[in-house]
Amino acid sequence: MSTLITAIGELVTNDPARPVRTDAAVVVEDGRIAWVGDAADAPAADEVVDAAGRAVLPGFVDSHSHLVFAGDRSQEFRARMAGEPYAAGGIRTTVAATRAASDETLAAGVARHVAEMRRQGTTTVEIKSGYGLSVDDEARSLRVARGFTDETTFLGAHVVPPEHTDDPAGYVDLVTGPMLAAAAPYARWIDVFCETGAFDADQARTILRAGEAAGLGGRLHANQLGPGPGVALAAELGLTAVDHCTYLTDDDVHALRDAGTVATLLPGVEFSTRQPYPSGRRLIDAGVTVAIASDCNPGSCYTSSLPFCIALAVREMGMTPLEAVWSATAGGAAALGRDDIGTLAPGKRADLVLLDAPSHVHLAYRPGVPLVVRTWGS
Amino acid sequence: MSTLITAIGELVTNDPARPVRTDAAVVVEDGRIAWVGDAADAPAADEVVDAAGRAVLPGFVDSHSHLVFAGDRSQEFRARMAGEPYAAGGIRTTVAATRAASDETLAAGVARHVAEMRRQGTTTVEIKSGYGLSVDDEARSLRVARGFTDETTFLGAHVVPPEHTDDPAGYVDLVTGPMLAAAAPYARWIDVFCETGAFDADQARTILRAGEAAGLGGRLHANQLGPGPGVALAAELGLTAVDHCTYLTDDDVHALRDAGTVATLLPGVEFSTRQPYPSGRRLIDAGVTVAIASDCNPGSCYTSSLPFCIALAVREMGMTPLEAVWSATAGGAAALGRDDIGTLAPGKRADLVLLDAPSHVHLAYRPGVPLVVRTWGS
Repeated sequence: MSTLITAIGELVTNDPARPVRTDAAVVVEDGRIAWVGDAADAPAADEVVDAAGRAVLPGFVDSHSHLVFAGDRSQEFRARMAGEPYAAGGIRTTVAATRAASDETLAAGVARHVAEMRRQGTTTVEIKSGYGLSVDDEARSLRVARGFTDETTFLGAHVVPPEHTDDPAGYVDLVTGPMLAAAAPYARWIDVFCETGAFDADQARTILRAGEAAGLGGRLHANQLGPGPGVALAAELGLTAVDHCTYLTDDDVHALRDAGTVATLLPGVEFSTRQPYPSGRRLIDAGVTVAIASDCNPGSCYTSSLPFCIALAVREMGMTPLEAVWSATAGGAAALGRDDIGTLAPGKRADLVLLDAPSHVHLAYRPGVPLVVRTWGS
Repeated sequence: MSTLITAIGELVTNDPARPVRTDAAVVVEDGRIAWVGDAADAPAADEVVDAAGRAVLPGFVDSHSHLVFAGDRSQEFRARMAGEPYAAGGIRTTVAATRAASDETLAAGVARHVAEMRRQGTTTVEIKSGYGLSVDDEARSLRVARGFTDETTFLGAHVVPPEHTDDPAGYVDLVTGPMLAAAAPYARWIDVFCETGAFDADQARTILRAGEAAGLGGRLHANQLGPGPGVALAAELGLTAVDHCTYLTDDDVHALRDAGTVATLLPGVEFSTRQPYPSGRRLIDAGVTVAIASDCNPGSCYTSSLPFCIALAVREMGMTPLEAVWSATAGGAAALGRDDIGTLAPGKRADLVLLDAPSHVHLAYRPGVPLVVRTWGS
């Protein structure tokens, strides 16, 4: 079964040879891109979809989300908008609700959010654990997540749970020992929240090395709430990606560039916590690879919308619309170490989004408007 | 035919006696609200809709839009995001495209945008002319708009069109003479863009008085690009509403309060032009009635999403989620001098929105996510 999508007004391919084409067509076959070219030269196919001059983009790659949770923190959000600062400790509220929920409740929540993301154009989503924080609850969180994506991340080191408050070293031993052993079969990645109130750089290094020894790739939450050692650590360890990057020194930026570590910006977090936005422009100009992701979670940022994050990246982070789209597609793919997604070229996965707009620019030009009309793939 | 909407987790009524109810139900009959109360006490009806614990709000009232236009200014938007300032003169680009378009093209554009707004919960929309700027083009713009709403506004005084650049006084004579005569049969309101680069306060006063003599209610665009005399003029003339209000002195604020003129904030404009956001908090605390509208137009703000504007009002304008929702519903109704919409109480129009969320707070807590699942009315 082959499908020809034709009369594409603007096709964003992210193919370095020709990143944006007009009057284009794409042929999809068996879940892969079979052909990309001018609409006038398109081959025949079993099925034809008329894009009617609208834009087609690679499906969005959301490389950072926390979808395995129960409960809601809308009261905390309301208090924050009235002036309360965001603090990492709020995570414990969701830990209590998540531990108390059934597997079915957790899976239904993930299913609902993944479907919501897909309606907004997301075709690949990374999902973290991190609201279980016990051996059994972390393992089941990842088991639930694995039902929806291969991009699962073990985040036992999200915060120290209440029962270990007096013994954080003991909790690190638990994370790197039995919890990692129970989580690893369901995880591709390991992640640590390296921040004041969560884990310091030495703890993060220990946990990431243990994860690596168990076959997991390393990632970090770092420099979100203030300057810190996390970004430098990510570069030192040569991690695939480090996420948040709200507060960066020049040394941090240079270290990211030299290490080839992707900086994943999460503009919905700055929106929802009233933190200052980091500059995507500064990172791109320095030669750092930038990804944009949602960080969808019930505390610091409960958006699931990459179109919204793209609009924020343009408004607030100095990125052009095309850079923002690249970061939410090819950039997300880079942050997950993937080369089969994020780009539209023969052989890549046929993950595509059709917009109700003639150009990718409209994702920023028309903020908040649900422009995704159809999603193919994954 | 009566419809009972029951199991409403949270019902925002905007009824001063009880603005938010939980575990509520509503009965709708013949396009009006017939009953509001506790779900447990709900009467029988011909049809039952189970809200399943989700939130129901009054339909959004978008009291400021410019939907009669042709063309697109995405290139101007892209240049602005790269550092070019917004200027009123860009309006002339849309004037040229609108004049060149057929009636059918203009009507199709309005239909598309009104449908898009409705999918996002807007049940009443005001639509302005202002991209015709000739007797025939203003009259046909309003004739087209009248096909979609009774809330039509004659904005011949949007900018001075190119053919009158050397004779702005002559253009004011045209607006207040033959153009007003041709437009009035299709318009409820008259509006002036009172701003440097558009019309000054004396011209605005002249135009508004002519409109009033022709039976139209007055409104103003004012204090958008800098401090100016427009807001004070709106209060002096006792207008129903004055829109933008980005730059206000304390005297402006007191004048609005004393006159009872609604201040309509358009946060999408500040988002899309990188202007500073005005403080809704300051206005509310001073006793001014605040509306929130989209200003949907191809130049300064091409969002059609009141949920997005509500999220911005909370993030950027110091309003609580409930205040922002009030301003986008009851506030919009006040800005249009209407008491049949914006509130859910017996006898009011049955314009309602069902959210895929338990509370109105989620409109700000989940920015950019399309939460409107169903819209009733108008």
